Amino acid sequence: MTLTQPAVPTRQELHRHLSALHPDLGVLSDRDLAGRHPGEHADNFGAGVMAQPATTEAAAALVSWCRAHDVPIVPQGGRTGLVGGNISQTGEVILSAGRLNRIRSIEPEEMTATVEAGVTLEALQQAAAEHGLTTGIDLGSRGSATIGGMVSTNAGGILAFRNGVMRHQVLGLEAVLPSGEIFSDLTRMVKVSAGPDLKQLFIGGEGAFGFVTKIVVKLEPQRPHRATALMGVADAMTALAVIRRLRALPGVTLEAAEMMWPRYIRDHARLKGLDLSWLEEDAAALLIEISGESVDVAAAALEEQLSELWEPLGLRGGIVAQSLDQARRFWDVREDSGFYYAEIPDAASFDVSVPPTYLDSYVAQLEKRLKAIDPTYAAYVYGHIADGNLHLTLIKRGPLPEQELRALEDAVYTGIREAGGSFSAEHGVGREKRYGYETFTSPEKQALARTLKNALDPKGLFNPGKVPF
Amino acid sequence: MTLTQPAVPTRQELHRHLSALHPDLGVLSDRDLAGRHPGEHADNFGAGVMAQPATTEAAAALVSWCRAHDVPIVPQGGRTGLVGGNISQTGEVILSAGRLNRIRSIEPEEMTATVEAGVTLEALQQAAAEHGLTTGIDLGSRGSATIGGMVSTNAGGILAFRNGVMRHQVLGLEAVLPSGEIFSDLTRMVKVSAGPDLKQLFIGGEGAFGFVTKIVVKLEPQRPHRATALMGVADAMTALAVIRRLRALPGVTLEAAEMMWPRYIRDHARLKGLDLSWLEEDAAALLIEISGESVDVAAAALEEQLSELWEPLGLRGGIVAQSLDQARRFWDVREDSGFYYAEIPDAASFDVSVPPTYLDSYVAQLEKRLKAIDPTYAAYVYGHIADGNLHLTLIKRGPLPEQELRALEDAVYTGIREAGGSFSAEHGVGREKRYGYETFTSPEKQALARTLKNALDPKGLFNPGKVPF
Repeated sequence: MTLTQPAVPTRQELHRHLSALHPDLGVLSDRDLAGRHPGEHADNFGAGVMAQPATTEAAAALVSWCRAHDVPIVPQGGRTGLVGGNISQTGEVILSAGRLNRIRSIEPEEMTATVEAGVTLEALQQAAAEHGLTTGIDLGSRGSATIGGMVSTNAGGILAFRNGVMRHQVLGLEAVLPSGEIFSDLTRMVKVSAGPDLKQLFIGGEGAFGFVTKIVVKLEPQRPHRATALMGVADAMTALAVIRRLRALPGVTLEAAEMMWPRYIRDHARLKGLDLSWLEEDAAALLIEISGESVDVAAAALEEQLSELWEPLGLRGGIVAQSLDQARRFWDVREDSGFYYAEIPDAASFDVSVPPTYLDSYVAQLEKRLKAIDPTYAAYVYGHIADGNLHLTLIKRGPLPEQELRALEDAVYTGIREAGGSFSAEHGVGREKRYGYETFTSPEKQALARTLKNALDPKGLFNPGKVPF
Repeated sequence: MTLTQPAVPTRQELHRHLSALHPDLGVLSDRDLAGRHPGEHADNFGAGVMAQPATTEAAAALVSWCRAHDVPIVPQGGRTGLVGGNISQTGEVILSAGRLNRIRSIEPEEMTATVEAGVTLEALQQAAAEHGLTTGIDLGSRGSATIGGMVSTNAGGILAFRNGVMRHQVLGLEAVLPSGEIFSDLTRMVKVSAGPDLKQLFIGGEGAFGFVTKIVVKLEPQRPHRATALMGVADAMTALAVIRRLRALPGVTLEAAEMMWPRYIRDHARLKGLDLSWLEEDAAALLIEISGESVDVAAAALEEQLSELWEPLGLRGGIVAQSLDQARRFWDVREDSGFYYAEIPDAASFDVSVPPTYLDSYVAQLEKRLKAIDPTYAAYVYGHIADGNLHLTLIKRGPLPEQELRALEDAVYTGIREAGGSFSAEHGVGREKRYGYETFTSPEKQALARTLKNALDPKGLFNPGKVPF
């Protein structure tokens, strides 16, 4: 073994080498990791060695060492990713943002925050709340999801129809490049036109272009006075008409519009003991939240709209939450969207975006396509309706055989790009959506992505085997 | 001369070769160009040969030919750029989007438009208006500026404080790469997380990474019922307090907040015969526009705020426009910002973004720094105050000697990056801001930009000599 051409090191060797590398590089062994939760995928800790730098410099030292020794790196944030983007294996090093967890500053008058990558969404929301502010992105896994991870996957969530996705919330960014150099562009301005915006490569880059260490994000005013309703709608077109009406209403702000197709809302409500006697049997449910000057103003607006829209839009039931607790129960039915996993473990699930006006025909066609593969197929359908983001879960115990999964992916993804949508709306590509990426992304786009990857990471050491490069 | 190593072709040779290349490639000679306006820079037509493809395929044919024959390409849109990004010279080919001027579709329910790159901002605004919609970006040069050019320079303008800049408005994009391949990603969705968002390279890329041919942009509802006011303010902090108040007001929407420092508003008003007797002598002017359910509602809100804020914020004058004509005259003082060029031709001008809370100290320090170079120096200062975007013009006939210009740039740019701002807010880098880029951008960012440029355009044929690669 020479210094320039080392053999693949064992976990123990890696642990020993890394431990001596930098005083701020907390290194955990497989024994240390054994007691920790690996997150959304059982194989996330497969590498058995984790570096938890407390500083950007320590992360850079690790990356330089790995580059010199050809050791692959798997960046990790809160490990809430749903597409296997955090999976690691022996011979690799997990580079965790877990100790990069300081909120560096909040600038209330600018409505920006500068945070380290491992700060959780909830921690930032709590700190911002002291200034009457909150984040422009929100999602169910806020307690674990980190800002760095949300940047790397270009997270979306429930506010994207109004605020855009993470890409639109990031003002500045610092990252360690695969070369070991530190890229720093911590501007706090929306208006920057100083050459191409290189930090965009790291947003949605899923750890393939570097390790994000700091982020400047926009904040927005809290609007705490909320009212929540569940409405019965015949289809997505009706839901969109409700949304348009509410968005145009003066004095209130639409905060969320989440749709649950009939099977999802029925099965879940039954499980949670939520009374749906007011909802017509075959109706979908639209969860609406609005804010106003006071809770009463918001609730009154919702009550008024419910009765005004009832006839013209043919609403099929509707109820305004009478308490915070009731509102919380409505939300729980939407956000606890993994409720079915106990019944159908490893169910195949998908996350697509479809131009809103195509939603109804897409869902109808999808049902036919699924039944063409297997007449017993059925799916849970729900999602962020205002931006056309659908989540789909096949009601069948998984994991499916490769061939069946491919047929299913063809059924779910075909035609979406041509309609102007995407096979992956907010979960990313990771390892599990590679077939979708390779089959439903234009060859030129894939080639360009590879060109950029080769230019930045010629050894292919950053998050190998994931987003397909 | 061999086919593989051609000599630099003459204009005539270029014209002859290109004319035979593709039936949709309209090729103009220097004689054809002689009667046309070159736009904001006299040397824009320096190449003397212009290709005006009517289709993406024709543009791709041109690019492939140029690559094979090592001929540099200068992309052009409306030629309204202010930093020399469109300058061309003999031996190069101008690739104009002038005939790519069709609005391909408007999807009113999605609030998106798909346009060819050469469509002007105003043309899109007019077409969108038929659906009660408008663009999320607006700027003074709307009659000439093209959507493709605005993408390439990541244009900002007067709505950026609310809607972000062009980067935040683009959903999909098609471009011809330096390889001659067509990159097509015409999604219409906000929510896409399918690998890194490669189209970002072309947004703000100033033509260095390819030629943009089609764009999907967001639209937003028109809010036609407007009221306009000019207010006297002591400083930027006061202006920001007014802005915060107006943004929090229920029932009305802040549409614009433009600040003109005392010297600018005084000199320009005198030139235009605008009565400023109501404005205290040393006050800056804040131009405010808000929209509401009706013109009366908007005007009443402005009148009310003017009197409510008068005492606590120490307003130093204020007037609500009593007619559309008066509002137009207020706007003219802000938008006709080149009024001084008759007096001070070739004046050095700058476009920086500074975190809003630093604006007052920045402007105060700047004055000192300028006077340290030359005690007779003075500057016009004005800009999009809500997003910290300042325009500065030195009141001295230009062009300045190289050394004086460098000293001036040092004075204007020093410290801005450290404060979280940018030496270029919305005008781009082009040829004229290269010193700023090279001196006030981190070396790692410059190195990364060069790496990407080399990967995409190894021959360096796209817009050479501009954004520094």
